[in-house]
Amino acid sequence: MTTISEPIVAGDLAPAADDLDGRAVATVRMLALDAVQAAASGHPGLPMGAAVPAWAIFSRFLRHDPTAADWPDRDRFVLSAGHGSALLYALLHLFGYDLPIEELRNFRQWGSRTPGHPEYGHTVGVETTTGPLGQGLATAVGMALAERMLAARCNEPDREVMGHRTWVLASDGDLMEGISHEAASLAGHLGLGRLIVLHDDNDITIDGAAHQSCTDDTATRFSGYGWHTLRVDDGNDLDAVVAALNGAVDEVERPTLISVRTVIGYGAPTVAGTAKAHGTPLSPEELALTRARFGWPDEPFHIPSDVAEHCAQLAARGRDTRQRWERDCAQRWTGWVEKAAGNGRMPDFAPGDRLATRVASGKVLQALVSQCPGLVGGSADLAGSTGTALSGESPVHRDDYTGRLIHFGIREHGMAAALNGMALHGGLRPFGSTFLVFSDYLRPALRLSALMGLPVVYVFTHDSVAVGEDGPTHQPVEHVEALRLIPGLTVLRPADAHETAACWELALQRQDGPTALILSRQSLPALDPPPAGAVAEDGGWAVRDPANPEVVLVAAGSEVALAVSAADELQRSCGPVARVVSVPWRERFTADGYHIALVPDDIPAVWIEAGVRTGWQALARPGDAVIGLDRFGASAPGPKVYAELGFTAERVATAARQVVETAQRVSVTAGGRSAR
Amino acid sequence: MTTISEPIVAGDLAPAADDLDGRAVATVRMLALDAVQAAASGHPGLPMGAAVPAWAIFSRFLRHDPTAADWPDRDRFVLSAGHGSALLYALLHLFGYDLPIEELRNFRQWGSRTPGHPEYGHTVGVETTTGPLGQGLATAVGMALAERMLAARCNEPDREVMGHRTWVLASDGDLMEGISHEAASLAGHLGLGRLIVLHDDNDITIDGAAHQSCTDDTATRFSGYGWHTLRVDDGNDLDAVVAALNGAVDEVERPTLISVRTVIGYGAPTVAGTAKAHGTPLSPEELALTRARFGWPDEPFHIPSDVAEHCAQLAARGRDTRQRWERDCAQRWTGWVEKAAGNGRMPDFAPGDRLATRVASGKVLQALVSQCPGLVGGSADLAGSTGTALSGESPVHRDDYTGRLIHFGIREHGMAAALNGMALHGGLRPFGSTFLVFSDYLRPALRLSALMGLPVVYVFTHDSVAVGEDGPTHQPVEHVEALRLIPGLTVLRPADAHETAACWELALQRQDGPTALILSRQSLPALDPPPAGAVAEDGGWAVRDPANPEVVLVAAGSEVALAVSAADELQRSCGPVARVVSVPWRERFTADGYHIALVPDDIPAVWIEAGVRTGWQALARPGDAVIGLDRFGASAPGPKVYAELGFTAERVATAARQVVETAQRVSVTAGGRSAR
Repeated sequence: MTTISEPIVAGDLAPAADDLDGRAVATVRMLALDAVQAAASGHPGLPMGAAVPAWAIFSRFLRHDPTAADWPDRDRFVLSAGHGSALLYALLHLFGYDLPIEELRNFRQWGSRTPGHPEYGHTVGVETTTGPLGQGLATAVGMALAERMLAARCNEPDREVMGHRTWVLASDGDLMEGISHEAASLAGHLGLGRLIVLHDDNDITIDGAAHQSCTDDTATRFSGYGWHTLRVDDGNDLDAVVAALNGAVDEVERPTLISVRTVIGYGAPTVAGTAKAHGTPLSPEELALTRARFGWPDEPFHIPSDVAEHCAQLAARGRDTRQRWERDCAQRWTGWVEKAAGNGRMPDFAPGDRLATRVASGKVLQALVSQCPGLVGGSADLAGSTGTALSGESPVHRDDYTGRLIHFGIREHGMAAALNGMALHGGLRPFGSTFLVFSDYLRPALRLSALMGLPVVYVFTHDSVAVGEDGPTHQPVEHVEALRLIPGLTVLRPADAHETAACWELALQRQDGPTALILSRQSLPALDPPPAGAVAEDGGWAVRDPANPEVVLVAAGSEVALAVSAADELQRSCGPVARVVSVPWRERFTADGYHIALVPDDIPAVWIEAGVRTGWQALARPGDAVIGLDRFGASAPGPKVYAELGFTAERVATAARQVVETAQRVSVTAGGRSAR
Repeated sequence: MTTISEPIVAGDLAPAADDLDGRAVATVRMLALDAVQAAASGHPGLPMGAAVPAWAIFSRFLRHDPTAADWPDRDRFVLSAGHGSALLYALLHLFGYDLPIEELRNFRQWGSRTPGHPEYGHTVGVETTTGPLGQGLATAVGMALAERMLAARCNEPDREVMGHRTWVLASDGDLMEGISHEAASLAGHLGLGRLIVLHDDNDITIDGAAHQSCTDDTATRFSGYGWHTLRVDDGNDLDAVVAALNGAVDEVERPTLISVRTVIGYGAPTVAGTAKAHGTPLSPEELALTRARFGWPDEPFHIPSDVAEHCAQLAARGRDTRQRWERDCAQRWTGWVEKAAGNGRMPDFAPGDRLATRVASGKVLQALVSQCPGLVGGSADLAGSTGTALSGESPVHRDDYTGRLIHFGIREHGMAAALNGMALHGGLRPFGSTFLVFSDYLRPALRLSALMGLPVVYVFTHDSVAVGEDGPTHQPVEHVEALRLIPGLTVLRPADAHETAACWELALQRQDGPTALILSRQSLPALDPPPAGAVAEDGGWAVRDPANPEVVLVAAGSEVALAVSAADELQRSCGPVARVVSVPWRERFTADGYHIALVPDDIPAVWIEAGVRTGWQALARPGDAVIGLDRFGASAPGPKVYAELGFTAERVATAARQVVETAQRVSVTAGGRSAR
């Protein structure tokens, strides 16, 4: 265990007056400490421990221009250990990003630009939202991949339009998470030599010594992934850190992991090297002693003028580099970006086409990739099944990044985070696919797509118990509804090929958030084409709209065909006249009350979806019926499972007759009942 | 890439007449093929490729008695690559488990005991439900850990009550999944030497060659975890496989990974060694040729009598071993099991105690562990924060498994799967904890807890935006509702210390499924103790129940205190008289209509929870109000975030006044409105 017993001697850690690096590092440490102290909340340990490595990257390596934080070819710096946000904010401030010192004073306060964990879109210079461990590292893999793919598309022999690095500062916790395995394995496989991960190896986690729960030989592990690995024994030895970083930069074939032994909370006399330094502010006494040890004035948020000046000079160099890029490369880049978006004309489907929506989606996607050069993506080893194995397109490979397809492997979580990284990087429009039931495997990364508002398209197929023989482990029941709960995620469940095309169109138009396409395994009849705006503006429409309907059958996805069959059945049996409504986008359908127009107060309804009923119960009125599935599925041929679990036209028709009867009864006695 | 070009020569793969092993392996292969063929659905490739290694384990190593499949000290065999279920069913049948040949003929059919993926509780001899990749391996880690922990509790110098092995057959896909990292790292750390994983290294995944997406050096990777690694170059070489298995058995300090190079679909002349053999039945021609190559009669489900007899003899040996165990060890085991359950008396809390429910939970748990020796568990590195760092209890360590606590590390997914494995093993009652927001990280394993009906207790704390400064990445919004969607998972969100105790009691009483306890970070006032049965039988109760209530405020968890404050506010302002209802267990509350008794049709209600509103909207009647949160949170001190996002007594009181006004208006005009 890293226990240290620091002598409490004022000035013992003070940098020499002419040690500009040392003074800058001390400034970073004290700014971070002061921010945490002001908030009375936060994580002092990582900024104190990892200040030297972070400073080494920012001062010696990072290619960036704080005055143009969106420069496409900037290096990306990802603080995967997002709890150390104060470290990042200190550096962003010192290097002249638009983050005034007042923001550091307001660390973790309502409305500040310095939230507890770094939030993309909230703070200039923050490349991705981090905090949930492992996500930053895995997102960085997507950034590094996007960089190589764009280099392959944009660079010319004499012009390097894209040629930056992606830097990651990761904690023990990042590397313990399973997603780190998926991401690192993928990065090694793809030979992402411009990805450099600094492992802040402080051997401390929240519960104490990291080796209480983990005794991995991390270098060996990463060697197994084909990474270049390096080690620095003293994270306060700037020269050693710089030497290792140079070694990483020199390695171009493989990503590099540098394990740097650091001391969490370095400089804090009693808590350094212990879990106490991780996530709580220092006591006032400890802070005062720490300040004294660094020879720092008793003035919170103090920045020596020579340090400020030095950082400004370093930043200016980046500006020069960026300006050269603007001169030489910007036009070509802009040309690519314009071309990349393309012109997504949708293929036509003749009504009557009987296609699984996953197959329809595959046809749409095939048409789209030829028109939108920026559209790239792949599957977590289900390309064929999910309709994303595009013919004529080649996969990305470590020796050739020109392909459009990415074999993500059986790594759903790593895939989703990589998609986030590609979307964050810019210049590409990423999609990824797997079975809907495995959306659970990638949910933490998908949540970040939504939180960051990234235009990632998720293709989730095999969307109900109609999956059949594979059984309950492969049959989603709760998943569509569980996705609909995530704020900012657009969940689309088309009923046929036409709606699938409309949903893809909508997904690609969307720039400010992710979309999940929920698609059937089984074939579905094509309905009439939806009228313009039926999906994108209204979220739903009347697939069957006879005059004077007596009941409305509302369904989504594959259950729309079922509702249509039920309506036919009702018609045959002289039952109530049924309107059938398809709801591919429920959130939109209900947002402005359009659902009330199609399902008016005075007509009873049956709501149908082959999944948990909660979300439809929220729409149902007293007396309506909701046909869903509040249990797990079973293994048998799809049509059998579907029917056995209650998804038959007959059952829907029966429910329709019942709700109409109930409504008539209630109507007769309405005077005697409360309206509630 | 493993491409092979098998010569199509009848009989070229036929075992010799006296090669009993060869004939048994051919039987396994052909039974699996015939089952897939009968179903016209399934995965022939793995059974064909991995039949020799599986046979090696079953015939030479597996300590089991098919006539007593629940023998506590049996070896566990986990087919992590669950898609190869036909392999497992063939072996279970041959060795005399209660799985008649008719069940193999009905593979993947409605009501059969041979579902598409192995399902625990559905088929005797299936130790865990597998199919979602990585889960089997990670669950097996929990089984192997349980074995060591129980050995430490039950064994005596001259009596090995617990001393079995856990065998896993895992695919490339299992090892690509992130959960495999968490599980393998944990197993290596804990020195689970009786865990033996056979890696079916066939280099094929659904999309083609595995090396399209993965070029890990798996042995190096596992060495990094502290595993013993072995390699067999020809998976059809029984002697080599047996030698490696012996090597694994001899290694007692470290878990062993044996990578066995196999050929997927071995024997099928045109598809062997390709992805085509993975997940679709062979064509009739290919099947006929395969049958001919193995010299097999043209009779589906053929079992040579010598093979049947041999398997019966092997099984009989296991019966002898088991009977010796019954004689020598069963009593001591039963004694442990009885003692383990203990007598869970709950601690008392004086009303007025102001405790976070996570703290109350910690106190309850502290009392429970002293009374229930079988209760063991831990945290994904948040023991202190989640109230599971039990004082006086020591952690499990590779050199001493007597402890009660498990440092799962920052491995939520691996933790949940390990909890499943411990629950499946029997003899221990496992719990695990993390922040609620990170329930997303373990959701696939938690779904399996529910699907298998395992009595695992999940402790999820920091349950709303009141988490505060850590910001939206750490603030659950959709999570409570997303958990409530999972069939079979009991989700309990207590409002105070008393309810927390009642929820723990309920969780421990539950034997047939998992429970999630949803607990607050922030302190909450203690209400009056709930009446008997209020939580476990009714799911909710009236915390404030004045005569003639005019409005009902319904809330869960921390929002109950808010509702009470609102009721006070209404009383002060002579507003409508408010009943306050706490709903710790919403599923139960609504199951038998008890909610209608507490929230009767003629009294309007306000439903309040600091999370997405969907589930409460499903309960709300027209005119009711639902106060929730359909957006992500923000970083600031908890009370500030909570208030800014609308969780104030004032807002609740205002909503209460409004719903009462609306109800009165509607009541006046009721005659003119439809009751719907």
